[in-house]
Amino acid sequence: MWRTEIRIRFSHCDPAGIVYFARYFDLMNGVVEDWFSGALGLDYAEFIGPRRVGLGYASCEADFAAPGFMGDRISFAVLVERIGAASLALRILAYRGPDPILSARLTIVTTSLVEHRAIPIPDDLRAALERYQGDTQ
Amino acid sequence: MWRTEIRIRFSHCDPAGIVYFARYFDLMNGVVEDWFSGALGLDYAEFIGPRRVGLGYASCEADFAAPGFMGDRISFAVLVERIGAASLALRILAYRGPDPILSARLTIVTTSLVEHRAIPIPDDLRAALERYQGDTQ
Amino acid sequence: MWRTEIRIRFSHCDPAGIVYFARYFDLMNGVVEDWFSGALGLDYAEFIGPRRVGLGYASCEADFAAPGFMGDRISFAVLVERIGAASLALRILAYRGPDPILSARLTIVTTSLVEHRAIPIPDDLRAALERYQGDTQ
Amino acid sequence: MWRTEIRIRFSHCDPAGIVYFARYFDLMNGVVEDWFSGALGLDYAEFIGPRRVGLGYASCEADFAAPGFMGDRISFAVLVERIGAASLALRILAYRGPDPILSARLTIVTTSLVEHRAIPIPDDLRAALERYQGDTQ
Repeated sequence: MWRTEIRIRFSHCDPAGIVYFARYFDLMNGVVEDWFSGALGLDYAEFIGPRRVGLGYASCEADFAAPGFMGDRISFAVLVERIGAASLALRILAYRGPDPILSARLTIVTTSLVEHRAIPIPDDLRAALERYQGDTQ
Repeated sequence: MWRTEIRIRFSHCDPAGIVYFARYFDLMNGVVEDWFSGALGLDYAEFIGPRRVGLGYASCEADFAAPGFMGDRISFAVLVERIGAASLALRILAYRGPDPILSARLTIVTTSLVEHRAIPIPDDLRAALERYQGDTQ
Repeated sequence: MWRTEIRIRFSHCDPAGIVYFARYFDLMNGVVEDWFSGALGLDYAEFIGPRRVGLGYASCEADFAAPGFMGDRISFAVLVERIGAASLALRILAYRGPDPILSARLTIVTTSLVEHRAIPIPDDLRAALERYQGDTQ
Repeated sequence: MWRTEIRIRFSHCDPAGIVYFARYFDLMNGVVEDWFSGALGLDYAEFIGPRRVGLGYASCEADFAAPGFMGDRISFAVLVERIGAASLALRILAYRGPDPILSARLTIVTTSLVEHRAIPIPDDLRAALERYQGDTQ
Protein backbone atom coordinates (compact mmCIF):
# COMPACT_ATOMS: atom_id res chain seq x y z
CA MET A 1 0.00 0.00 0.00
CA TRP A 2 1.26 3.44 -0.93
CA ARG A 3 2.09 5.76 1.97
CA THR A 4 3.50 9.23 2.33
CA GLU A 5 4.84 11.00 5.37
CA ILE A 6 3.97 14.57 6.32
CA ARG A 7 5.79 16.53 8.98
CA ILE A 8 3.29 18.67 10.86
CA ARG A 9 4.21 22.32 10.43
CA PHE A 10 3.61 25.40 12.51
CA SER A 11 0.98 26.63 10.09
CA HIS A 12 -0.96 23.36 10.18
CA CYS A 13 -1.74 23.97 13.84
CA ASP A 14 -4.28 26.13 15.58
CA PRO A 15 -4.14 28.10 18.84
CA ALA A 16 -4.96 24.86 20.69
CA GLY A 17 -1.56 23.66 19.42
CA ILE A 18 -2.94 20.80 17.31
CA VAL A 19 -3.60 20.30 13.62
CA TYR A 20 -6.59 22.45 12.64
CA PHE A 21 -9.34 20.16 11.37
CA ALA A 22 -9.87 22.12 8.16
CA ARG A 23 -6.17 21.94 7.45
CA TYR A 24 -6.35 18.14 7.69
CA PHE A 25 -8.69 18.18 4.69
CA ASP A 26 -6.22 20.39 2.85
CA LEU A 27 -3.38 18.02 3.75
CA MET A 28 -5.46 15.07 2.55
CA ASN A 29 -6.00 16.78 -0.80
CA GLY A 30 -2.21 17.00 -1.06
CA VAL A 31 -1.95 13.31 -0.16
CA VAL A 32 -4.36 12.49 -3.00
CA GLU A 33 -2.25 14.57 -5.41
CA ASP A 34 0.94 12.77 -4.41
CA TRP A 35 -0.83 9.41 -4.55
CA PHE A 36 -1.85 10.16 -8.15
CA SER A 37 1.76 10.57 -9.21
CA GLY A 38 3.36 8.14 -6.73
CA ALA A 39 0.92 5.23 -6.89
CA LEU A 40 -1.26 5.70 -9.98
CA GLY A 41 1.45 7.10 -12.24
CA LEU A 42 -0.86 9.97 -13.25
CA ASP A 43 -0.41 13.72 -12.98
CA TYR A 44 -3.10 15.40 -10.87
CA ALA A 45 -2.26 18.88 -12.20
CA GLU A 46 -2.68 17.66 -15.78
CA PHE A 47 -6.22 16.49 -15.01
CA ILE A 48 -7.27 19.85 -13.57
CA GLY A 49 -5.23 21.92 -16.05
CA PRO A 50 -4.90 20.84 -19.69
CA ARG A 51 -7.48 18.00 -19.50
CA ARG A 52 -10.05 20.16 -17.62
CA VAL A 53 -11.20 17.19 -15.53
CA GLY A 54 -12.37 18.22 -12.09
CA LEU A 55 -11.68 15.94 -9.13
CA GLY A 56 -13.85 17.67 -6.56
CA TYR A 57 -15.50 16.11 -3.53
CA ALA A 58 -19.15 15.07 -3.36
CA SER A 59 -18.82 14.14 0.28
CA CYS A 60 -16.24 13.55 2.94
CA GLU A 61 -16.15 12.32 6.47
CA ALA A 62 -13.37 12.08 9.00
CA ASP A 63 -12.90 10.67 12.48
CA PHE A 64 -10.16 12.25 14.53
CA ALA A 65 -9.08 9.63 17.09
CA ALA A 66 -6.15 11.62 18.47
CA PRO A 67 -4.76 15.09 17.78
CA GLY A 68 -1.72 15.77 15.63
CA PHE A 69 0.98 18.02 17.08
CA MET A 70 3.56 20.30 15.51
CA GLY A 71 6.68 18.34 14.64
CA ASP A 72 4.81 15.01 14.35
CA ARG A 73 5.72 12.79 11.44
CA ILE A 74 2.40 11.38 10.25
CA SER A 75 2.15 8.63 7.69
CA PHE A 76 -0.86 8.76 5.36
CA ALA A 77 -2.08 5.61 3.56
CA VAL A 78 -4.64 5.52 0.76
CA LEU A 79 -7.11 2.76 -0.10
CA VAL A 80 -9.61 2.67 -2.96
CA GLU A 81 -12.95 1.72 -1.43
CA ARG A 82 -15.25 2.07 -4.41
CA ILE A 83 -14.98 2.78 -8.14
CA GLY A 84 -18.26 4.00 -9.60
CA ALA A 85 -19.32 5.36 -12.98
CA ALA A 86 -18.43 9.00 -12.34
CA SER A 87 -17.14 8.83 -8.78
CA LEU A 88 -14.70 7.03 -6.55
CA ALA A 89 -14.32 6.67 -2.80
CA LEU A 90 -10.96 6.75 -1.07
CA ARG A 91 -10.13 5.78 2.49
CA ILE A 92 -7.31 7.80 4.00
CA LEU A 93 -5.68 6.55 7.18
CA ALA A 94 -3.15 8.62 9.10
CA TYR A 95 -0.71 7.02 11.52
CA ARG A 96 1.73 8.33 14.11
CA GLY A 97 1.98 4.92 15.79
CA PRO A 98 0.23 1.57 15.32
CA ASP A 99 -3.34 2.94 15.41
CA PRO A 100 -4.71 5.53 13.02
CA ILE A 101 -5.15 8.99 14.49
CA LEU A 102 -7.37 9.90 11.56
CA SER A 103 -9.63 7.85 9.31
CA ALA A 104 -11.36 9.63 6.47
CA ARG A 105 -13.49 8.75 3.50
CA LEU A 106 -13.38 11.08 0.51
CA THR A 107 -15.78 10.66 -2.38
CA ILE A 108 -14.44 12.26 -5.54
CA VAL A 109 -16.65 13.04 -8.54
CA THR A 110 -15.07 13.37 -11.96
CA THR A 111 -16.47 16.41 -13.72
CA SER A 112 -15.94 18.46 -16.83
CA LEU A 113 -14.53 21.83 -15.77
CA VAL A 114 -15.79 23.22 -19.08
CA GLU A 115 -19.42 22.07 -18.87
CA HIS A 116 -19.60 21.76 -15.05
CA ARG A 117 -21.25 18.34 -15.03
CA ALA A 118 -20.23 14.83 -13.97
CA ILE A 119 -18.39 12.77 -16.57
CA PRO A 120 -17.37 9.10 -16.58
CA ILE A 121 -14.05 8.40 -14.87
CA PRO A 122 -11.45 8.77 -17.65
CA ASP A 123 -10.10 5.42 -18.89
CA ASP A 124 -6.52 5.89 -17.74
CA LEU A 125 -7.66 6.87 -14.25
CA ARG A 126 -10.10 3.94 -14.07
CA ALA A 127 -7.42 1.45 -15.13
CA ALA A 128 -4.96 2.84 -12.58
CA LEU A 129 -7.57 2.77 -9.80
CA GLU A 130 -8.48 -0.85 -10.56
CA ARG A 131 -4.83 -1.87 -10.64
CA TYR A 132 -4.14 -0.15 -7.33
CA GLN A 133 -7.27 -1.61 -5.77
CA GLY A 134 -6.26 -5.09 -6.92
CA ASP A 135 -2.71 -4.70 -5.61
CA THR A 136 -3.79 -3.54 -2.14
CA GLN A 137 -6.46 -6.15 -1.46
CA MET B 1 -33.33 29.25 13.79
CA TRP B 2 -30.15 31.31 13.76
CA ARG B 3 -28.60 31.97 10.36
CA THR B 4 -25.65 33.90 9.05
CA GLU B 5 -24.76 34.92 5.53
CA ILE B 6 -21.29 34.55 4.04
CA ARG B 7 -20.26 36.14 0.76
CA ILE B 8 -17.95 33.76 -1.09
CA ARG B 9 -14.59 35.42 -1.56
CA PHE B 10 -11.83 35.03 -4.11
CA SER B 11 -9.66 33.22 -1.59
CA HIS B 12 -12.38 30.72 -0.68
CA CYS B 13 -12.21 29.33 -4.20
CA ASP B 14 -9.85 26.94 -5.91
CA PRO B 15 -8.53 26.78 -9.48
CA ALA B 16 -11.77 25.02 -10.47
CA GLY B 17 -13.48 28.30 -9.55
CA ILE B 18 -15.57 26.86 -6.72
CA VAL B 19 -15.29 26.89 -2.94
CA TYR B 20 -12.39 24.63 -1.95
CA PHE B 21 -13.77 21.81 0.19
CA ALA B 22 -11.22 22.32 2.99
CA ARG B 23 -12.13 26.00 3.09
CA TYR B 24 -15.76 25.04 3.67
CA PHE B 25 -14.70 23.42 6.93
CA ASP B 26 -12.83 26.59 7.87
CA LEU B 27 -15.90 28.68 7.00
CA MET B 28 -18.06 26.37 9.12
CA ASN B 29 -15.75 26.86 12.08
CA GLY B 30 -16.35 30.59 11.67
CA VAL B 31 -20.10 29.95 11.52
CA VAL B 32 -19.87 28.06 14.82
CA GLU B 33 -17.95 30.98 16.37
CA ASP B 34 -20.57 33.49 15.25
CA TRP B 35 -23.36 31.17 16.36
CA PHE B 36 -21.81 31.07 19.85
CA SER B 37 -22.08 34.85 20.20
CA GLY B 38 -25.18 35.40 18.03
CA ALA B 39 -27.39 32.54 19.19
CA LEU B 40 -25.95 31.16 22.43
CA GLY B 41 -24.84 34.49 23.89
CA LEU B 42 -21.39 33.04 24.65
CA ASP B 43 -17.94 34.13 23.55
CA TYR B 44 -16.06 31.43 21.61
CA ALA B 45 -12.70 33.17 22.05
CA GLU B 46 -13.17 33.26 25.80
CA PHE B 47 -13.63 29.48 25.90
CA ILE B 48 -10.40 28.82 23.99
CA GLY B 49 -8.47 31.67 25.62
CA PRO B 50 -8.98 32.53 29.31
CA ARG B 51 -11.15 29.46 30.13
CA ARG B 52 -8.82 27.03 28.29
CA VAL B 53 -11.75 24.94 27.08
CA GLY B 54 -11.06 23.31 23.73
CA LEU B 55 -13.89 22.93 21.23
CA GLY B 56 -12.17 20.65 18.74
CA TYR B 57 -13.79 18.17 16.42
CA ALA B 58 -14.01 14.42 17.06
CA SER B 59 -15.57 13.82 13.68
CA CYS B 60 -17.15 15.64 10.82
CA GLU B 61 -18.94 14.76 7.65
CA ALA B 62 -20.21 16.87 4.80
CA ASP B 63 -22.25 16.34 1.65
CA PHE B 64 -21.70 18.85 -1.10
CA ALA B 65 -24.86 18.89 -3.21
CA ALA B 66 -23.84 21.80 -5.44
CA PRO B 67 -20.71 23.93 -5.70
CA GLY B 68 -20.39 27.42 -4.26
CA PHE B 69 -19.07 30.14 -6.58
CA MET B 70 -17.21 33.39 -5.95
CA GLY B 71 -19.67 36.17 -5.23
CA ASP B 72 -22.39 33.81 -3.96
CA ARG B 73 -24.25 34.85 -0.83
CA ILE B 74 -24.65 31.65 1.14
CA SER B 75 -26.82 31.40 4.22
CA PHE B 76 -25.64 29.01 6.94
CA ALA B 77 -28.08 27.61 9.51
CA VAL B 78 -27.12 25.70 12.67
CA LEU B 79 -29.07 22.98 14.46
CA VAL B 80 -28.11 21.14 17.65
CA GLU B 81 -28.52 17.44 16.91
CA ARG B 82 -27.18 15.89 20.09
CA ILE B 83 -25.95 17.05 23.50
CA GLY B 84 -23.80 14.43 25.20
CA ALA B 85 -21.69 14.36 28.34
CA ALA B 86 -18.50 15.79 26.84
CA SER B 87 -19.54 16.27 23.24
CA LEU B 88 -22.19 17.82 21.05
CA ALA B 89 -23.23 17.35 17.45
CA LEU B 90 -24.21 20.24 15.21
CA ARG B 91 -25.92 20.11 11.84
CA ILE B 92 -24.87 22.90 9.50
CA LEU B 93 -26.96 23.58 6.42
CA ALA B 94 -25.86 26.02 3.74
CA TYR B 95 -28.35 27.56 1.32
CA ARG B 96 -28.05 29.62 -1.85
CA GLY B 97 -31.66 28.87 -2.83
CA PRO B 98 -34.42 26.66 -1.40
CA ASP B 99 -32.32 23.45 -1.18
CA PRO B 100 -29.12 23.13 0.84
CA ILE B 101 -25.94 23.07 -1.24
CA LEU B 102 -24.09 21.70 1.79
CA SER B 103 -25.17 19.60 4.74
CA ALA B 104 -22.60 18.86 7.41
CA ARG B 105 -22.47 17.25 10.82
CA LEU B 106 -19.77 18.41 13.19
CA THR B 107 -19.14 16.62 16.47
CA ILE B 108 -17.39 18.84 18.97
CA VAL B 109 -15.65 17.49 22.06
CA THR B 110 -15.13 19.77 25.04
CA THR B 111 -11.60 19.36 26.35
CA SER B 112 -9.23 20.89 28.85
CA LEU B 113 -6.51 22.66 26.89
CA VAL B 114 -4.32 22.39 30.00
CA GLU B 115 -4.65 18.65 30.64
CA HIS B 116 -5.54 17.66 27.04
CA ARG B 117 -8.46 15.41 27.98
CA ALA B 118 -12.23 15.49 27.53
CA ILE B 119 -14.20 17.39 30.16
CA PRO B 120 -17.96 17.68 30.75
CA ILE B 121 -19.66 20.38 28.70
CA PRO B 122 -19.44 23.53 30.88
CA ASP B 123 -22.75 24.42 32.54
CA ASP B 124 -23.29 27.73 30.74
CA LEU B 125 -22.66 26.11 27.37
CA ARG B 126 -24.96 23.17 28.18
CA ALA B 127 -27.77 25.49 29.28
CA ALA B 128 -27.42 27.60 26.14
CA LEU B 129 -27.35 24.51 23.89
CA GLU B 130 -30.50 23.11 25.51
CA ARG B 131 -32.29 26.42 25.21
CA TYR B 132 -31.35 26.75 21.53
CA GLN B 133 -32.29 23.14 20.85
CA GLY B 134 -35.67 23.69 22.49
CA ASP B 135 -36.29 26.90 20.56
CA THR B 136 -35.52 25.38 17.16
CA GLN B 137 -37.57 22.19 17.46
CA MET C 1 -12.02 57.10 4.84
CA TRP C 2 -13.63 53.70 4.41
CA ARG C 3 -13.05 51.20 7.23
CA THR C 4 -14.16 47.69 8.01
CA GLU C 5 -13.91 45.72 11.23
CA ILE C 6 -12.76 42.12 11.42
CA ARG C 7 -13.13 39.99 14.52
CA ILE C 8 -10.07 37.79 14.85
CA ARG C 9 -11.14 34.16 14.68
CA PHE C 10 -9.67 30.96 16.06
CA SER C 11 -8.54 29.91 12.60
CA HIS C 12 -6.74 33.19 11.95
CA CYS C 13 -4.32 32.38 14.75
CA ASP C 14 -1.29 30.16 14.96
CA PRO C 15 0.10 28.01 17.76
CA ALA C 16 1.73 31.15 19.21
CA GLY C 17 -1.85 32.36 19.76
CA ILE C 18 -1.58 35.36 17.44
CA VAL C 19 -2.73 36.09 13.90
CA TYR C 20 -0.60 34.05 11.50
CA PHE C 21 1.27 36.46 9.22
CA ALA C 22 0.19 34.70 6.02
CA ARG C 23 -3.40 34.86 7.18
CA TYR C 24 -3.07 38.64 7.52
CA PHE C 25 -2.44 38.81 3.79
CA ASP C 26 -5.52 36.69 3.19
CA LEU C 27 -7.56 38.95 5.48
CA MET C 28 -6.26 42.00 3.61
CA ASN C 29 -7.39 40.50 0.31
CA GLY C 30 -10.85 40.24 1.86
CA VAL C 31 -10.59 43.88 2.99
CA VAL C 32 -9.80 44.89 -0.59
CA GLU C 33 -12.83 42.91 -1.83
CA ASP C 34 -15.14 44.61 0.66
CA TRP C 35 -13.60 48.00 -0.12
CA PHE C 36 -14.41 47.48 -3.80
CA SER C 37 -18.10 47.09 -3.05
CA GLY C 38 -18.30 49.33 0.04
CA ALA C 39 -16.18 52.29 -1.09
CA LEU C 40 -15.74 52.03 -4.86
CA GLY C 41 -19.21 50.71 -5.66
CA LEU C 42 -17.71 47.95 -7.80
CA ASP C 43 -18.03 44.19 -7.57
CA TYR C 44 -14.67 42.43 -7.10
CA ALA C 45 -16.10 39.03 -8.05
CA GLU C 46 -17.40 40.44 -11.33
CA PHE C 47 -13.90 41.62 -12.25
CA ILE C 48 -12.34 38.20 -11.70
CA GLY C 49 -15.35 36.26 -13.02
CA PRO C 50 -17.35 37.57 -16.01
CA ARG C 51 -14.94 40.40 -16.90
CA ARG C 52 -11.82 38.19 -16.57
CA VAL C 53 -9.78 41.03 -15.13
CA GLY C 54 -7.14 39.81 -12.71
CA LEU C 55 -6.30 41.90 -9.65
CA GLY C 56 -3.21 40.05 -8.49
CA TYR C 57 -0.29 41.46 -6.53
CA ALA C 58 3.01 42.56 -8.05
CA SER C 59 4.45 43.26 -4.65
CA CYS C 60 3.46 43.65 -1.05
CA GLU C 61 5.07 44.66 2.16
CA ALA C 62 3.82 44.71 5.72
CA ASP C 63 5.08 45.90 9.08
CA PHE C 64 3.61 44.18 12.09
CA ALA C 65 3.92 46.60 15.00
CA ALA C 66 1.96 44.49 17.48
CA PRO C 67 0.36 41.05 17.32
CA GLY C 68 -3.36 40.44 16.82
CA PHE C 69 -5.08 38.09 19.25
CA MET C 70 -8.13 35.86 18.97
CA GLY C 71 -11.26 37.83 19.80
CA ASP C 72 -9.70 41.18 18.85
CA ARG C 73 -11.84 43.56 16.85
CA ILE C 74 -9.48 45.10 14.33
CA SER C 75 -10.42 48.01 12.12
CA PHE C 76 -8.88 48.08 8.64
CA ALA C 77 -8.60 51.32 6.67
CA VAL C 78 -7.68 51.63 2.99
CA LEU C 79 -5.86 54.46 1.23
CA VAL C 80 -5.01 54.76 -2.46
CA GLU C 81 -1.32 55.66 -2.64
CA ARG C 82 -0.72 55.53 -6.37
CA ILE C 83 -2.73 55.04 -9.55
CA GLY C 84 -0.55 53.96 -12.48
CA ALA C 85 -1.24 52.80 -16.02
CA ALA C 86 -1.76 49.13 -15.24
CA SER C 87 -1.22 49.06 -11.51
CA LEU C 88 -2.30 50.69 -8.28
CA ALA C 89 -0.85 50.81 -4.79
CA LEU C 90 -2.98 50.60 -1.67
CA ARG C 91 -2.01 51.33 1.90
CA ILE C 92 -3.82 49.19 4.45
CA LEU C 93 -3.73 50.22 8.09
CA ALA C 94 -5.09 48.01 10.85
CA TYR C 95 -6.06 49.42 14.24
CA ARG C 96 -6.99 47.91 17.58
CA GLY C 97 -6.39 51.22 19.38
CA PRO C 98 -5.00 54.61 18.34
CA ASP C 99 -1.83 53.30 16.66
CA PRO C 100 -1.81 50.88 13.75
CA ILE C 101 -0.76 47.34 14.63
CA LEU C 102 -0.22 46.64 10.93
CA SER C 103 0.74 48.85 8.02
CA ALA C 104 0.87 47.28 4.59
CA ARG C 105 1.36 48.36 1.02
CA LEU C 106 -0.18 46.21 -1.69
CA THR C 107 0.58 46.83 -5.34
CA ILE C 108 -2.12 45.41 -7.58
CA VAL C 109 -1.61 44.84 -11.30
CA THR C 110 -4.62 44.69 -13.58
CA THR C 111 -4.27 41.76 -15.97
CA SER C 112 -6.24 39.91 -18.58
CA LEU C 113 -7.02 36.47 -17.16
CA VAL C 114 -7.49 35.26 -20.73
CA GLU C 115 -4.19 36.47 -22.20
CA HIS C 116 -2.22 36.55 -18.92
CA ARG C 117 -0.69 39.98 -19.47
CA ALA C 118 -1.03 43.41 -17.87
CA ILE C 119 -3.86 45.59 -19.17
CA PRO C 120 -4.71 49.26 -18.48
CA ILE C 121 -6.81 49.80 -15.36
CA PRO C 122 -10.43 49.56 -16.59
CA ASP C 123 -12.15 52.95 -16.84
CA ASP C 124 -14.78 52.37 -14.19
CA LEU C 125 -12.13 51.19 -11.72
CA ARG C 126 -9.86 54.15 -12.53
CA ALA C 127 -12.68 56.64 -12.04
CA ALA C 128 -13.66 55.08 -8.72
CA LEU C 129 -10.05 55.03 -7.52
CA GLU C 130 -9.56 58.69 -8.39
CA ARG C 131 -12.80 59.66 -6.69
CA TYR C 132 -11.85 57.73 -3.53
CA GLN C 133 -8.33 59.14 -3.56
CA GLY C 134 -9.72 62.66 -3.87
CA ASP C 135 -12.23 62.13 -1.07
CA THR C 136 -9.66 60.82 1.40
CA GLN C 137 -6.96 63.40 0.90
CA MET D 1 23.37 27.59 -0.56
CA TRP D 2 20.55 25.47 0.80
CA ARG D 3 17.56 25.02 -1.51
CA THR D 4 14.31 23.11 -1.37
CA GLU D 5 11.84 22.31 -4.11
CA ILE D 6 8.09 22.69 -3.75
CA ARG D 7 5.62 21.31 -6.24
CA ILE D 8 2.75 23.75 -6.62
CA ARG D 9 -0.45 22.06 -5.54
CA PHE D 10 -4.08 22.58 -6.47
CA SER D 11 -4.78 24.19 -3.11
CA HIS D 12 -1.92 26.67 -3.45
CA CYS D 13 -3.71 28.27 -6.38
CA ASP D 14 -6.56 30.71 -6.62
CA PRO D 15 -9.41 31.07 -9.13
CA ALA D 16 -6.99 32.94 -11.43
CA GLY D 17 -5.11 29.61 -11.61
CA ILE D 18 -1.91 30.93 -10.03
CA VAL D 19 -0.37 30.68 -6.57
CA TYR D 20 -2.41 32.82 -4.20
CA PHE D 21 -0.14 35.55 -2.80
CA ALA D 22 -1.07 34.82 0.83
CA ARG D 23 -0.29 31.16 0.28
CA TYR D 24 3.21 32.12 -0.88
CA PHE D 25 3.85 33.53 2.59
CA ASP D 26 2.59 30.29 4.09
CA LEU D 27 4.85 28.31 1.76
CA MET D 28 7.80 30.51 2.73
CA ASN D 29 7.15 29.82 6.40
CA GLY D 30 7.43 26.13 5.53
CA VAL D 31 10.67 26.84 3.66
CA VAL D 32 12.05 28.52 6.79
CA GLU D 33 11.05 25.48 8.88
CA ASP D 34 12.79 23.09 6.51
CA TRP D 35 15.81 25.37 6.31
CA PHE D 36 16.11 25.25 10.11
CA SER D 37 16.44 21.47 10.06
CA GLY D 38 18.12 21.08 6.67
CA ALA D 39 20.67 23.90 6.81
CA LEU D 40 20.96 25.04 10.43
CA GLY D 41 20.61 21.62 12.04
CA LEU D 42 17.97 22.98 14.41
CA ASP D 43 14.38 21.92 15.00
CA TYR D 44 11.86 24.70 14.36
CA ALA D 45 9.07 22.88 16.21
CA GLU D 46 11.26 22.58 19.29
CA PHE D 47 11.76 26.35 19.38
CA ILE D 48 8.04 27.07 19.28
CA GLY D 49 7.05 24.11 21.44
CA PRO D 50 9.25 23.04 24.39
CA ARG D 51 11.59 26.06 24.27
CA ARG D 52 8.71 28.56 23.89
CA VAL D 53 10.73 30.77 21.58
CA GLY D 54 8.58 32.59 19.06
CA LEU D 55 9.89 33.16 15.55
CA GLY D 56 7.22 35.54 14.32
CA TYR D 57 7.60 38.21 11.67
CA ALA D 58 8.16 41.91 12.35
CA SER D 59 7.94 42.74 8.68
CA CYS D 60 7.95 41.12 5.30
CA GLU D 61 8.03 42.19 1.72
CA ALA D 62 7.77 40.28 -1.50
CA ASP D 63 8.08 41.03 -5.20
CA PHE D 64 6.26 38.67 -7.51
CA ALA D 65 8.04 38.84 -10.86
CA ALA D 66 6.05 36.05 -12.50
CA PRO D 67 3.14 33.90 -11.38
CA GLY D 68 3.47 30.31 -10.17
CA PHE D 69 1.20 27.71 -11.75
CA MET D 70 -0.21 24.41 -10.53
CA GLY D 71 2.26 21.62 -11.21
CA ASP D 72 5.28 23.94 -11.24
CA ARG D 73 8.39 22.74 -9.44
CA ILE D 74 9.74 25.83 -7.71
CA SER D 75 13.09 25.93 -6.01
CA PHE D 76 13.38 28.13 -2.93
CA ALA D 77 16.77 29.41 -1.74
CA VAL D 78 17.46 31.10 1.60
CA LEU D 79 20.07 33.75 2.42
CA VAL D 80 20.77 35.37 5.78
CA GLU D 81 20.83 39.12 5.17
CA ARG D 82 21.18 40.44 8.69
CA ILE D 83 21.69 39.07 12.20
CA GLY D 84 20.63 41.55 14.87
CA ALA D 85 20.27 41.39 18.63
CA ALA D 86 16.72 40.03 18.73
CA SER D 87 15.93 39.78 15.04
CA LEU D 88 17.20 38.40 11.77
CA ALA D 89 16.41 39.11 8.15
CA LEU D 90 16.18 36.37 5.54
CA ARG D 91 16.09 36.73 1.79
CA ILE D 92 14.01 34.05 0.06
CA LEU D 93 14.38 33.59 -3.68
CA ALA D 94 12.11 31.30 -5.67
CA TYR D 95 13.13 29.96 -9.06
CA ARG D 96 11.34 28.09 -11.82
CA GLY D 97 14.08 28.93 -14.33
CA PRO D 98 17.20 31.11 -14.25
CA ASP D 99 15.50 34.26 -12.89
CA PRO D 100 13.65 34.42 -9.58
CA ILE D 101 9.86 34.55 -9.89
CA LEU D 102 9.69 35.70 -6.27
CA SER D 103 12.07 37.63 -4.07
CA ALA D 104 11.09 38.17 -0.45
CA ARG D 105 12.61 39.57 2.69
CA LEU D 106 11.34 38.24 5.99
CA THR D 107 12.37 39.83 9.27
CA ILE D 108 11.97 37.42 12.16
CA VAL D 109 11.92 38.56 15.77
CA THR D 110 12.84 36.11 18.51
CA THR D 111 10.34 36.37 21.33
CA SER D 112 9.43 34.67 24.57
CA LEU D 113 6.07 32.98 24.03
CA VAL D 114 5.62 33.03 27.81
CA GLU D 115 6.25 36.73 28.44
CA HIS D 116 5.36 37.96 24.92
CA ARG D 117 8.41 40.18 24.51
CA ALA D 118 11.51 40.19 22.32
CA ILE D 119 14.46 38.16 23.58
CA PRO D 120 18.04 37.89 22.31
CA ILE D 121 18.54 35.34 19.54
CA PRO D 122 19.32 32.08 21.37
CA ASP D 123 23.02 31.12 21.21
CA ASP D 124 22.60 27.94 19.18
CA LEU D 125 20.48 29.75 16.62
CA ARG D 126 22.92 32.65 16.41
CA ALA D 127 25.87 30.33 15.90
CA ALA D 128 24.05 28.41 13.18
CA LEU D 129 22.98 31.63 11.43
CA GLU D 130 26.55 32.97 11.45
CA ARG D 131 27.92 29.70 10.13
CA TYR D 132 25.34 29.60 7.34
CA GLN D 133 25.90 33.24 6.49
CA GLY D 134 29.66 32.66 6.28
CA ASP D 135 29.25 29.57 4.12
CA THR D 136 26.99 31.28 1.59
CA GLN D 137 28.96 34.46 1.08
